[in-house]
Amino acid sequence: MKYRTDLALECKQLYDKENKDRRGDIPGIHSETEVFDEDIKVTRIEILDKRGELALGKPAGNYITLEIEGLIDGKEGVKERASEALGKELGKLIPFKYDLKTLVVGIGNDKVTPDALGPYTASKIKITRHLFLIYEADGDYEMSCVSGLIPGVMGSTGIETAELIKRAIDIVAPEVVIAVDSLAARDIARVNTTIQINDVGISPGKGMGNVRTELSKNTLGRRTIAIGVPTVIDAATLIADAMLDIGRSDDEVEKYLAENQHELVVTSTDIDLVIKDFSDIIANGINITLHPGIYKNRSTDR
Amino acid sequence: MKYRTDLALECKQLYDKENKDRRGDIPGIHSETEVFDEDIKVTRIEILDKRGELALGKPAGNYITLEIEGLIDGKEGVKERASEALGKELGKLIPFKYDLKTLVVGIGNDKVTPDALGPYTASKIKITRHLFLIYEADGDYEMSCVSGLIPGVMGSTGIETAELIKRAIDIVAPEVVIAVDSLAARDIARVNTTIQINDVGISPGKGMGNVRTELSKNTLGRRTIAIGVPTVIDAATLIADAMLDIGRSDDEVEKYLAENQHELVVTSTDIDLVIKDFSDIIANGINITLHPGIYKNRSTDR
Amino acid sequence: MKYRTDLALECKQLYDKENKDRRGDIPGIHSETEVFDEDIKVTRIEILDKRGELALGKPAGNYITLEIEGLIDGKEGVKERASEALGKELGKLIPFKYDLKTLVVGIGNDKVTPDALGPYTASKIKITRHLFLIYEADGDYEMSCVSGLIPGVMGSTGIETAELIKRAIDIVAPEVVIAVDSLAARDIARVNTTIQINDVGISPGKGMGNVRTELSKNTLGRRTIAIGVPTVIDAATLIADAMLDIGRSDDEVEKYLAENQHELVVTSTDIDLVIKDFSDIIANGINITLHPGIYKNRSTDR
Amino acid sequence: MKYRTDLALECKQLYDKENKDRRGDIPGIHSETEVFDEDIKVTRIEILDKRGELALGKPAGNYITLEIEGLIDGKEGVKERASEALGKELGKLIPFKYDLKTLVVGIGNDKVTPDALGPYTASKIKITRHLFLIYEADGDYEMSCVSGLIPGVMGSTGIETAELIKRAIDIVAPEVVIAVDSLAARDIARVNTTIQINDVGISPGKGMGNVRTELSKNTLGRRTIAIGVPTVIDAATLIADAMLDIGRSDDEVEKYLAENQHELVVTSTDIDLVIKDFSDIIANGINITLHPGIYKNRSTDR
Repeated sequence: MKYRTDLALECKQLYDKENKDRRGDIPGIHSETEVFDEDIKVTRIEILDKRGELALGKPAGNYITLEIEGLIDGKEGVKERASEALGKELGKLIPFKYDLKTLVVGIGNDKVTPDALGPYTASKIKITRHLFLIYEADGDYEMSCVSGLIPGVMGSTGIETAELIKRAIDIVAPEVVIAVDSLAARDIARVNTTIQINDVGISPGKGMGNVRTELSKNTLGRRTIAIGVPTVIDAATLIADAMLDIGRSDDEVEKYLAENQHELVVTSTDIDLVIKDFSDIIANGINITLHPGIYKNRSTDR
Repeated sequence: MKYRTDLALECKQLYDKENKDRRGDIPGIHSETEVFDEDIKVTRIEILDKRGELALGKPAGNYITLEIEGLIDGKEGVKERASEALGKELGKLIPFKYDLKTLVVGIGNDKVTPDALGPYTASKIKITRHLFLIYEADGDYEMSCVSGLIPGVMGSTGIETAELIKRAIDIVAPEVVIAVDSLAARDIARVNTTIQINDVGISPGKGMGNVRTELSKNTLGRRTIAIGVPTVIDAATLIADAMLDIGRSDDEVEKYLAENQHELVVTSTDIDLVIKDFSDIIANGINITLHPGIYKNRSTDR
Repeated sequence: MKYRTDLALECKQLYDKENKDRRGDIPGIHSETEVFDEDIKVTRIEILDKRGELALGKPAGNYITLEIEGLIDGKEGVKERASEALGKELGKLIPFKYDLKTLVVGIGNDKVTPDALGPYTASKIKITRHLFLIYEADGDYEMSCVSGLIPGVMGSTGIETAELIKRAIDIVAPEVVIAVDSLAARDIARVNTTIQINDVGISPGKGMGNVRTELSKNTLGRRTIAIGVPTVIDAATLIADAMLDIGRSDDEVEKYLAENQHELVVTSTDIDLVIKDFSDIIANGINITLHPGIYKNRSTDR
Repeated sequence: MKYRTDLALECKQLYDKENKDRRGDIPGIHSETEVFDEDIKVTRIEILDKRGELALGKPAGNYITLEIEGLIDGKEGVKERASEALGKELGKLIPFKYDLKTLVVGIGNDKVTPDALGPYTASKIKITRHLFLIYEADGDYEMSCVSGLIPGVMGSTGIETAELIKRAIDIVAPEVVIAVDSLAARDIARVNTTIQINDVGISPGKGMGNVRTELSKNTLGRRTIAIGVPTVIDAATLIADAMLDIGRSDDEVEKYLAENQHELVVTSTDIDLVIKDFSDIIANGINITLHPGIYKNRSTDR
């Protein structure tokens, strides 16, 4: 595919653009939209079968996108509302129960800001497994058993990320794995507005300057929920868009992109703030979902 | 000008591209190139008069560009060599003398990585003025009298940067001001390779998401040397380049850019490392120049 | 005085300890205590005259101490309540009005965690002066005109802190200066629990490894409110306490301290969290006071 | 033991102090001292048998202490010399060979500065295992196969540190494990001067505010080299020293410490610089030892 994006929503928008005249849902796709408090728009895309996979180029499953307005302008209370909306959607995929066990994995490199969403988020999760061990508890009605892992990147550990996660799974035996990672998008305007949740995990491909290994039920043997925020965009997509805007054909654009390497991924200049704000929002949303008795109306401000 | 760049070298390259058939120097411009140790290329462009100012769209003066190879790959000793080359060029603009007094100003916002080059560099300069005060010394043969200022950005202080610098000048009465700032370039490949020194100061214009005030002999009343590294690029320039590559005319490109706002500046994903490495190199180069007795062969590793 | 503390409350406790049998207020001192929400204790000490100054060894004026419980344990909502309590006390010293102008100064070194409270806090203040300039407004009923300054420390700027603040005052002409700084305490248990506000400014003396210049109406020519948190303690005070506990006389202790240099100040190992939390609390309290229309019930989470 | 220290050197100094009149080596102990370049003093203590273990309260093995002068004052080249001295001592414990495999583990919490030595150091190690995998190499004469792990602390992962390290060992099958960790000392003057290397690993006990699990050949099944720097001191030891100085008996001191809890560990106020400098020195020393072909005379300046 000539465009690189990890967002199912952008794939669907492209498909719709290239098939302007069709009516109703795409075969093999169900989608719906809901708006909270005027500033948070939730789009739920379900890829039902092979037809849907082909149309959007993503594996079958649920993809929920939150688009948040006014975050960077520091609009009052928007972070708290975003956390609640995220917690609500996440709660549908991971219903709370007395003996729920979860491993939260922060994918990426905490030394490289655009790649640091995962590590930052994981470090803000309320970890409880050690408390369950100390009190020899098999469960709880207020909080669930949560452990965390920041596996690092192959380039700075020399260890395959998926391998290390599998070993951590052997230790903590979670029912669900939540993997938080930075994503790539086509549209830089998404970098400080969008969160994607899916229940298929992280698909293999090029991540930030390193090959990304698949993290899914296939590779980890556990249900895998992925949560991500676009933090990088391909220079190529900026260019491809502009070319199409001036009426070049897809073939011409593809030919150009093939001939002119634009490996270099770029990011927004407000990336520091993006990572800070979105790691707060996601960590808080996860805490609300996994510890409903504690985090109902409280921010994970750290 | 349709392209945004703070680099005189890129302006000259554009001029040459648009005037392929001309021979020899551009009228009103003198330029020369020197290569050190195979991996550091120094280009010295002097804009002599109005003709040169018109051709390159920059005020008359000296613009020295260092292009450094293999920095991000951690090539052995390249940082040290780059500091020495920088110190050598800077030493021609600021000859050391017994009673030299300098104010080093770190322009930008240390909370926003691509804008943090100035503050990071200033915090690594060997400051000596307070020592001269304590020992009531009027000068020294090993080190000179250096003070530093990190004025912050208007948005986070509410105070005009130039105003605050002027007041600091009133206090320390320097002969020369060195202003370190992040720059914008057309070509993202320059973000982790290029340093520009000039003796005209910082020209007004859009800096990183804030209007930039002129810092020069005009506004500060002191000789002003500016040192900068490209850390941001206009999305627009990426696109304009691609369009020209596929044979669109300048007019078409200008028309497109006019119609499609691309205010958003982007940066490289390795920006954290770029700021860390270049602030080390520049601070060390400045220390070598202003404190020749101490820093001859030593790195400012902090 | 054998003990080093910047807290009027600790001075009073020492005085009371050394004068166990006296009844009622200390001559020249008025003090009162109030408790909010069980976990925030406010003590207001007013030093009325020379007698009080002699008794506590601090200049006449108001000293308000907030003691906050459960902050480090992340007790729910305690940060928000602390900000409101701080805002309430601060509001008595700085009543809001249409044309109020304030300069917030962050004293200290942001590269040295225990000394970074001032810079961290100042960087979280809602700065508005540039907006008033843009809209040519002479005042506002929702927010007031606030500017900020992080002057750095003499060792890293070579410029006298008070000098630079005076110049900034010349530019922004504030009615009040709020100076935020790290403090020294006797009791390490105060390091993550205590905030002191006073209306006399910062008295000269040894700050964190550098001589501290007086910042007050005397030196700045403006009403000066100081807000501080203990982040360092003298090793000496730990020892002196222990000696008294085992029944050594004051003379013996003083003799020991005189003979054994314990210049080295120490800090708590949770200092990173202390600086993060207290800079949030203080910045939010200041924002509530200076921008009542915006910050009534909102956290400055940045 | 009434004093808490992780340094064998301090244990020996205590023993010597309490046995002033004895001559020659302590039974079961061999020790020697060497000075490099005037500013680096190396003390090698070997605990030979049970008698030595009893005398110093540490398990049998080699304990090498480097005491470095003038580091905090930024003395020229001292960091480089310290790295070389460390590399030399480490090289005796881990001789380089073609197919050497090492796992470097950074123990501690990178969010808590005094506890961040391990994570900071591990992140500066030249990791090579992934390169050996890509090139399917079984060894090399210039560099050896190194992987790294930053396991985090139980409180923020919920996973037992030793468990996770064991799993990483299963993956990378190293011959040697190097564990880098923050240490506790009695004397705060050691916090910015001392490095200890041993070949017995990390003994169980209280680490920074968390119980520390044993990391040794026993628990990991691999030779384990520990490298540490004192970053925390017990308030208790400050007090105990002072009491002894004023002639209290050991029994009195022990009684006092037993009755007065001083759990609170304190650290030096220059801890940020200490962690930055020592992680550079240790990482570089490890790189020199494990990659002799690359790092002979080069600093790991990152």
